[in-house]
Amino acid sequence: MTASIPPGDAHESPRTPAVVLLSGGLDSATTLAIAMSDGFDCHALVFEYGQRHRVELEAADRVARTLGAASITQVHLDPDAFLGSALTTDLAVPKDRAPETLEPHDAGDIPVTYVPARNLVFLSYATALAESLGASDIYLGVNAVDYSGYPDCRPEFIDAFQRAAQLATRAGAQGATLHIHAPLISWTKAQIIRRGVELGVDYALTHSCYDPDGQGRACGHCDSCLLRKAGFERAGVADPTIYSPA
Amino acid sequence: MTASIPPGDAHESPRTPAVVLLSGGLDSATTLAIAMSDGFDCHALVFEYGQRHRVELEAADRVARTLGAASITQVHLDPDAFLGSALTTDLAVPKDRAPETLEPHDAGDIPVTYVPARNLVFLSYATALAESLGASDIYLGVNAVDYSGYPDCRPEFIDAFQRAAQLATRAGAQGATLHIHAPLISWTKAQIIRRGVELGVDYALTHSCYDPDGQGRACGHCDSCLLRKAGFERAGVADPTIYSPA
Repeated sequence: MTASIPPGDAHESPRTPAVVLLSGGLDSATTLAIAMSDGFDCHALVFEYGQRHRVELEAADRVARTLGAASITQVHLDPDAFLGSALTTDLAVPKDRAPETLEPHDAGDIPVTYVPARNLVFLSYATALAESLGASDIYLGVNAVDYSGYPDCRPEFIDAFQRAAQLATRAGAQGATLHIHAPLISWTKAQIIRRGVELGVDYALTHSCYDPDGQGRACGHCDSCLLRKAGFERAGVADPTIYSPA
Repeated sequence: MTASIPPGDAHESPRTPAVVLLSGGLDSATTLAIAMSDGFDCHALVFEYGQRHRVELEAADRVARTLGAASITQVHLDPDAFLGSALTTDLAVPKDRAPETLEPHDAGDIPVTYVPARNLVFLSYATALAESLGASDIYLGVNAVDYSGYPDCRPEFIDAFQRAAQLATRAGAQGATLHIHAPLISWTKAQIIRRGVELGVDYALTHSCYDPDGQGRACGHCDSCLLRKAGFERAGVADPTIYSPA
């Protein structure tokens, strides 16, 4: 974990702290904006776990600073803990899949971009950071509608984790109630984008692509690009993403 | 995470894999011996998280090799994630506490050696490693009897975690049942030691002290030393621990 870096206009504030998981993508940027609008002092938690590009980490940093997070904490997770995923190994990222395969589907059809137990590890760190900060609120941008079929994005996982975390911590054992907020969980991508635009999120700062080119431009063809493109279209919002011409 | 190191006599085997959390202490050494006797190929998972001494990591390595673990994986967790504990900061480790304060007590009385959300983070990594290995069994040596009052050592936490992990993983979503084994959870320290002796655990290889001297010798006065000493006494087993003469 690198030291927490207070962003540009760090402010002293008596507001209640919350931890917000931030990836640099569209969903987590919107989630941070929602947590800010809920009145929390937001401490962004960003993971570096052997992603194949640093573009999304830079996006996370831009988003946190621009939206006014109280701090940014970057944790390095060694990629060996997350074997067997196309996001951390040389497996090919699927491209131009048919739209119906990107929508919710059954548990037998989890894509190769699944990273073992990722949200479990992320939320556990968030719980540790929350306890260190005296925070009882954790936000994450998982979504079970326009998603990729990952088991750890389902509401029943979030509920089960909240119960485990409550029992794991000193604060929980002493009666505090830990809240895991997943405000986007039942929203479509278009609804997420419309809410983000209302809250002033600049989506040009965000990065969603699994397979950007050498200049950090989105491929336009991976599952994440396809879901994002369709979301802007359905929301009736101009897509600010810069796509690779290739 | 450092690369997995096959210990001395690594064996090729068709046995079912399991992940065993190993600290180098008495409880986790006994747990590894139990997992071995249950017939699993045991993959030891050891965490380094800014403990104040490397004595316990060396002990974990000795124990894993001696008992015949199939692999040892050491994960580095940055200590900044675990603020506010005497085990990772300069807070004083309590010494020579009265025996009654070492026994189970209510949740309001959690000692300063508590590390925020530690077992939650440890078990999450174990779940990720288990999924990578194709393992459905995780062993950990938590104990809710002769313990130090940590909330994340209680059976209700283990049960809640098992449910969350089951929902978090591809294997769980596809129907596999994840088992979190906590075989020591209701045993006294004396029972643990007796079972370990039956299974051939050499407790001279283990290290329990929170505050060893410069030569790695146990202080004999911290909570962990006091519980360990009393356990050997009650078990009627000679204590092989080398205590600091100071």
